[in-house]
Amino acid sequence: MAQTLPTPSSIYEAHALIKPYIHHTPVLTSRTLNRIASIPQTAESLTGTPFEGQTPANPKINFFFKCENYQRIGAFKSRGGFHALLRLIEEVGEEEVRRRGVVTHSSGNHAQALALAASTLGIPAYIVMPRISTSSKIAGTQSLGAEVIFSGSTSTEREAVVADVQKRTGAILVPPYDDFNIICGQGTTGLELHEQYKELVSQEPELSVHAQTQGHLDAVITPIGGGGLNSGVTTFFSDKETRVFGAEPSFEGADDCRRGLEAGQRLEAVKSLTIADGLRTPVGLLNWAIISDRSKHSGVFAVTEEQIKAAMRLVLERMKVFVEPSAVVPLAACLYNEEFRRLVEREAPEGWDVGVVFSGGNTTVEAIVKLFSSSLE
Amino acid sequence: MAQTLPTPSSIYEAHALIKPYIHHTPVLTSRTLNRIASIPQTAESLTGTPFEGQTPANPKINFFFKCENYQRIGAFKSRGGFHALLRLIEEVGEEEVRRRGVVTHSSGNHAQALALAASTLGIPAYIVMPRISTSSKIAGTQSLGAEVIFSGSTSTEREAVVADVQKRTGAILVPPYDDFNIICGQGTTGLELHEQYKELVSQEPELSVHAQTQGHLDAVITPIGGGGLNSGVTTFFSDKETRVFGAEPSFEGADDCRRGLEAGQRLEAVKSLTIADGLRTPVGLLNWAIISDRSKHSGVFAVTEEQIKAAMRLVLERMKVFVEPSAVVPLAACLYNEEFRRLVEREAPEGWDVGVVFSGGNTTVEAIVKLFSSSLE
Repeated sequence: MAQTLPTPSSIYEAHALIKPYIHHTPVLTSRTLNRIASIPQTAESLTGTPFEGQTPANPKINFFFKCENYQRIGAFKSRGGFHALLRLIEEVGEEEVRRRGVVTHSSGNHAQALALAASTLGIPAYIVMPRISTSSKIAGTQSLGAEVIFSGSTSTEREAVVADVQKRTGAILVPPYDDFNIICGQGTTGLELHEQYKELVSQEPELSVHAQTQGHLDAVITPIGGGGLNSGVTTFFSDKETRVFGAEPSFEGADDCRRGLEAGQRLEAVKSLTIADGLRTPVGLLNWAIISDRSKHSGVFAVTEEQIKAAMRLVLERMKVFVEPSAVVPLAACLYNEEFRRLVEREAPEGWDVGVVFSGGNTTVEAIVKLFSSSLE
Repeated sequence: MAQTLPTPSSIYEAHALIKPYIHHTPVLTSRTLNRIASIPQTAESLTGTPFEGQTPANPKINFFFKCENYQRIGAFKSRGGFHALLRLIEEVGEEEVRRRGVVTHSSGNHAQALALAASTLGIPAYIVMPRISTSSKIAGTQSLGAEVIFSGSTSTEREAVVADVQKRTGAILVPPYDDFNIICGQGTTGLELHEQYKELVSQEPELSVHAQTQGHLDAVITPIGGGGLNSGVTTFFSDKETRVFGAEPSFEGADDCRRGLEAGQRLEAVKSLTIADGLRTPVGLLNWAIISDRSKHSGVFAVTEEQIKAAMRLVLERMKVFVEPSAVVPLAACLYNEEFRRLVEREAPEGWDVGVVFSGGNTTVEAIVKLFSSSLE
């Protein structure tokens, strides 16, 4: 079966539809982070990598951070959630959607996003969550008006409970990433970043690495978990000059998309407990079809857990912006992935303006204590 | 000797002077924090306080957070630093200031602010810091181009080293808070907040508690350490309808200003290790003259260490904004000080629009781990 893929127009149309419901999140810049990115790594930091013994790359990078941690429910997922439900209403009719409701299984940001969109639009939402989810996540989803239904932790157990809910209520499944309308919703992140970049550099040309503005970002990089955000952003830029990259954690093979691209085949399963807990899922089918298209997508880079922590520390302490570990994986790639840094150096002597999506900010003080307390020992 | 006190005009003039050098920091709002502030505390939380057994107050509060954690060097202190040096240049002449340089003793934000202003204006800066300061603070100050000179930790030891430096170099002392020009510089925080509030509520009237806008905040509350920020803000609003409050930590008597007002006399010494480490100093003489004037200032409220931590958690996790403990003391007062909450309830049935200054964001991941790891036990 030939898949229908979203187009740049689908993203513009999605944006017009969801605009009243989402935040127009800020794009921030940071002279400090530009400076850090534009200094070569130390020779020692390349020890044990394929670049050991070589001269560290010396790229010039100016960042434009799209802060989806300030999005509603604290993550870009609200975009997809609202878009999926608004399209459902168009397609099935308001009355039927309200009668049947919607269902998904997620313990993360997608659950909250769907709960918010559903309650805003007056639609019942059933969220299947593993019994072992933290109480704050359960309470958070319930406080947004959704009915939480518990399941076991494996995907088989979760899907069985979803099937149960559907049988009982007729609820319509809204998948977290592998879905045309979800991808279009998440892609609006790219649209706003593109327009905000143009406005920022026209007001303050010195924010750009380019003496003469080109009117577009050289590159955009986003995290890849299931690939909803990255495939949406890739779609948006597919008829523009801006290249799109993805970033993944390498821990326990969470870089399934990168490895899949290398092998020429999508990997179907991931079992990683990376600290970037939003990126533990394998990339979806529709998402893969977009990301694996070399005419649209420029590559995926992986980073270690320590590199994620180092990037997170910089964003917290230097930018004073509160982000979750998944959100800083692209920044970590720009700062510490030597392959990416060589690419920038090689392609652009004057450097690149790089759009980086901070995907979300849903973490807790306790999680930060756990993450960083080992480094105090 | 009669002291010359700053006037609202002094603040407007200071702002015109420093504007090219400082960030125009954002004013943020938060529906979540408004909601939390507008729910009564639990009866249990009043146990052990003078309000035990009474019905918790039910004020309505909408916040307008002036984010000086996004100011240059991460704190409002840049305002005072630039203003003091720009006035010095006007008064003494550029050449002489450049020849003699400036000196201060501080291990905190004032050191960095003075170092930044001095290097920007081409003035040598000597910063006397206790030998036991953390290496990151020393490196931070040095990287801003200042010469760091070490001393012992007591104020006598520090002042002796300052005198030494002055004798050797002729450097001019720039005090951290007890100074006319510093106060005027810090007061510009209030000026911007005032104007940003007017703009915000004219664009989005629903941000205000008032059905019909009054064109001014009902109240502004800032932290009080040495009192530079609070006395500057108090001065700015002294000819306007907005009332100004201060907030202090109660731990080990760091609420010297509040206790001084109660006793009718400024307290000269404080020895507290409150987690709000920017607020461990006694209020200065000139600052006291302004804050103790009941025609200008409406009162100071104190909060406990646990209340500061609770407020900090809310700002990090809910607002996704990275702040230092000192910065959230005023928010803690609004949320947890029952005396303040009763005042709002009593004075204003429709509630108050309250401007809250987040004074800075210079903390570290390690400090957060230390602060919150005990709560995991």
